[in-house]
Amino acid sequence: MDNLLDQIKNIVGSNGILLGEDVTGRPDNWPPTGGCQAKAIIRPANTREVSGILKLCHAAGQSVVCHGGLTGLVGGARAGKDDIVISLERMNGMEPVDAVNRTVTVDAGIPLQKVHEAAEEADLLFPLDLGARGSCTIGGNISTNAGGNSVIRYGMIRDQLLGVEAVLADGTIISSLNGVIKNNTGYDLKQLFIGSEGTLGIVTRAVLRLRPLPRSCNTALVAIENFDQVGRFLRDMDSAMGGTMSAFEVMWNDFYRLIVGDGNKHGQPLGSDHGFYVLLESTGGHEESDKVRFEGALEEAFESELIVDAVIAQSKQQRENLWAVRDDIEGLTQILWPPIVFDISLGIPQMDDYVDEVRQQLADRWPDSVMVAFGHLGDGNIHLGITIGNHDPEEVHAVEAIVYEALGRRQGVISAEHGIGLDKREYLKHSRSVDEIALMKTLKQALDPKGILNPGKIFANQEDSPS
Amino acid sequence: MDNLLDQIKNIVGSNGILLGEDVTGRPDNWPPTGGCQAKAIIRPANTREVSGILKLCHAAGQSVVCHGGLTGLVGGARAGKDDIVISLERMNGMEPVDAVNRTVTVDAGIPLQKVHEAAEEADLLFPLDLGARGSCTIGGNISTNAGGNSVIRYGMIRDQLLGVEAVLADGTIISSLNGVIKNNTGYDLKQLFIGSEGTLGIVTRAVLRLRPLPRSCNTALVAIENFDQVGRFLRDMDSAMGGTMSAFEVMWNDFYRLIVGDGNKHGQPLGSDHGFYVLLESTGGHEESDKVRFEGALEEAFESELIVDAVIAQSKQQRENLWAVRDDIEGLTQILWPPIVFDISLGIPQMDDYVDEVRQQLADRWPDSVMVAFGHLGDGNIHLGITIGNHDPEEVHAVEAIVYEALGRRQGVISAEHGIGLDKREYLKHSRSVDEIALMKTLKQALDPKGILNPGKIFANQEDSPS
Repeated sequence: MDNLLDQIKNIVGSNGILLGEDVTGRPDNWPPTGGCQAKAIIRPANTREVSGILKLCHAAGQSVVCHGGLTGLVGGARAGKDDIVISLERMNGMEPVDAVNRTVTVDAGIPLQKVHEAAEEADLLFPLDLGARGSCTIGGNISTNAGGNSVIRYGMIRDQLLGVEAVLADGTIISSLNGVIKNNTGYDLKQLFIGSEGTLGIVTRAVLRLRPLPRSCNTALVAIENFDQVGRFLRDMDSAMGGTMSAFEVMWNDFYRLIVGDGNKHGQPLGSDHGFYVLLESTGGHEESDKVRFEGALEEAFESELIVDAVIAQSKQQRENLWAVRDDIEGLTQILWPPIVFDISLGIPQMDDYVDEVRQQLADRWPDSVMVAFGHLGDGNIHLGITIGNHDPEEVHAVEAIVYEALGRRQGVISAEHGIGLDKREYLKHSRSVDEIALMKTLKQALDPKGILNPGKIFANQEDSPS
Repeated sequence: MDNLLDQIKNIVGSNGILLGEDVTGRPDNWPPTGGCQAKAIIRPANTREVSGILKLCHAAGQSVVCHGGLTGLVGGARAGKDDIVISLERMNGMEPVDAVNRTVTVDAGIPLQKVHEAAEEADLLFPLDLGARGSCTIGGNISTNAGGNSVIRYGMIRDQLLGVEAVLADGTIISSLNGVIKNNTGYDLKQLFIGSEGTLGIVTRAVLRLRPLPRSCNTALVAIENFDQVGRFLRDMDSAMGGTMSAFEVMWNDFYRLIVGDGNKHGQPLGSDHGFYVLLESTGGHEESDKVRFEGALEEAFESELIVDAVIAQSKQQRENLWAVRDDIEGLTQILWPPIVFDISLGIPQMDDYVDEVRQQLADRWPDSVMVAFGHLGDGNIHLGITIGNHDPEEVHAVEAIVYEALGRRQGVISAEHGIGLDKREYLKHSRSVDEIALMKTLKQALDPKGILNPGKIFANQEDSPS
């Protein structure tokens, strides 16, 4: 064990440092491609210890990769053999929910689901939610600006965050544990640490904003013939429901047809010959009147011929069955094997034309390729699931080039909610200009002049070739 | 005219530059304390011209103060005799509203009210609203992170902003005119320019997010006996209304009694012997059912003895009469002459105790002092209106010291929505730690190494004594 690790051990104790097989026995990433390659995994107990570790690493020029729940999808937490990992797994506590202020202060290593549970016990809601809720941590959610479900109503985690405590590369603790909504006292420093994937600092604590726990939930699946009508239906429903729409998920016909198939697995809630399917949901404060409003708004949409068929969930079970269609990613990837999946944003008016163009380009090159489109239309965020029948790196690269190039021409966004990490670094230029990337590097240089924090993520290191 | 101004004139033309009495004839600030002192006022026509001007100023080390509508309240736009002013008054256009995407792209110099009007014509809402709507500009709103009404529901302008185009100190154009809600492609650069009061760049264009135009509005004034009940009532109403509360304004008894007085001016919508008064409003999508819900929730609050009296507006006129009580700042300042006014945030659980302590400290030193408390409780933001019968700078300073010192001890915020500018610079330390201020200066140094952008605002220049 080298001298630096000895000094770190003095800070965290022997329980706070993992070496050898304790390191390689852990996954390197998600989905794992092997064991963790880092020199050591350090497990600090509090912000002060994180600060002490970073002071030492900064002095030694030692690179550091921070680990939360390791559920990221872009290689943002991958560590090499020269890195040390700081895992926040022991920093997983929380203060009691402040039910009057409707806030809760948590350690960054706490799993998202624990926050859900604590909020709900206080009759409140922490609205950030995603599939990895049991494993992902608040610190990871912050460093990737997690989105997930309900963004149309509540926004990303950026909008749920009142204060942050973070440690800079040199060990300085920036404690901005602000608990109020309005704070215009100089620069809003917490923004630096949201979505910057651990490259500007390590978030150690956060003050989260909680919302009223909904008392009602109305869900429907509707069929629509053309894409213009989908856009108008979104706008009309959002207006009629007074801004309480909490989901507006669109499925292109190819997705729905693939998932529902012959109806064996999911039944066939609606016939499969319509252009588009929308799963929509609204939450509110009053069961009876919210239901009347929801059904009335759907009726209006029928009358104005925006929608052609609909099924409204009459029970919790029926609601789950409808969501199972949209959420059957396992079924989807089985059919689209091996899958290539994208997470993109673009303006709603450009969306249908974009999907058509990509589909056509893929078919031209791989006549047997399959592509389906679906996603959070209310947020301008869709997913593409594509298979070309193989996973040859060069061919996958060619698919990525088609998808991102057509997107770049429409001022689209190559990563709506997953971030850039290592895997999308090459394509950042399709969504960000040379000057924007240069400004990012200026910020990186100012906050982490030695480049020790999660090096090479988002963009190449200063000393590497430009990306 | 010096050489630099000649070069600038080559960029903007003679119509683009004001000198002499055209400069001193304009106010220096709001409320004005005299004429503008700047060397010249430059009026560029587009982003390219702003870039060209800043390139020249950067090379010459010339300080620049950007002007929007000049309605700021903290001296953030004040220019000295060595500065030149860039006014965005000619950059006041907008693109057509994109009704499907629900966005609009505007020049930074457009007045807020023009955006309201364009949104409403498209049956949409731009929810940022404040008293200065006719004069203030979107660029100024962004650089001060404006809040105003409806923050409880929609947030500050930070939450209404999808993309920004800005010019850096050296003239680099950072064009992040993103139009989607979800965009995790590296650092969210627009955050740098929101609330940084023109010290990190000049915002020239913006993409604004629009919302459904509400179809219903329910308003009530209620009386409550103690502060704990006010907090519980906020929580209960927000829950019952499913998160559609768009205003929750509290008035301490002293405010209400002062404004309503003997009932001559505002009538007396409720008796004046209750502890607290709350003006609350909810907007929604369905007139009939929203009204039922609102009245039902108030009834519940009666039954659980949270509120003791209430009046519900039955017409637009009645609604305006209720708001007139809360908004009678003119009447208030006449009574509290000369007024000293504060705009602070702190946790709701600390609020009542804080108000009591400040009132007591003021009474100890100035037995004839009067203080009233009121504000946006739903946002954790209250205002204090104070008079000590004179406006002697040293005595005003002593009042500020009492207000901010008691606030600092409770982790409160010295400026909820107005910013720091010049006027609150001395007190920034009560809300921000030494390390936070040092990090702000690191950012300033990285983005504006010559310190030419709005120098001395928020904190003292690098070369000045530390503040």
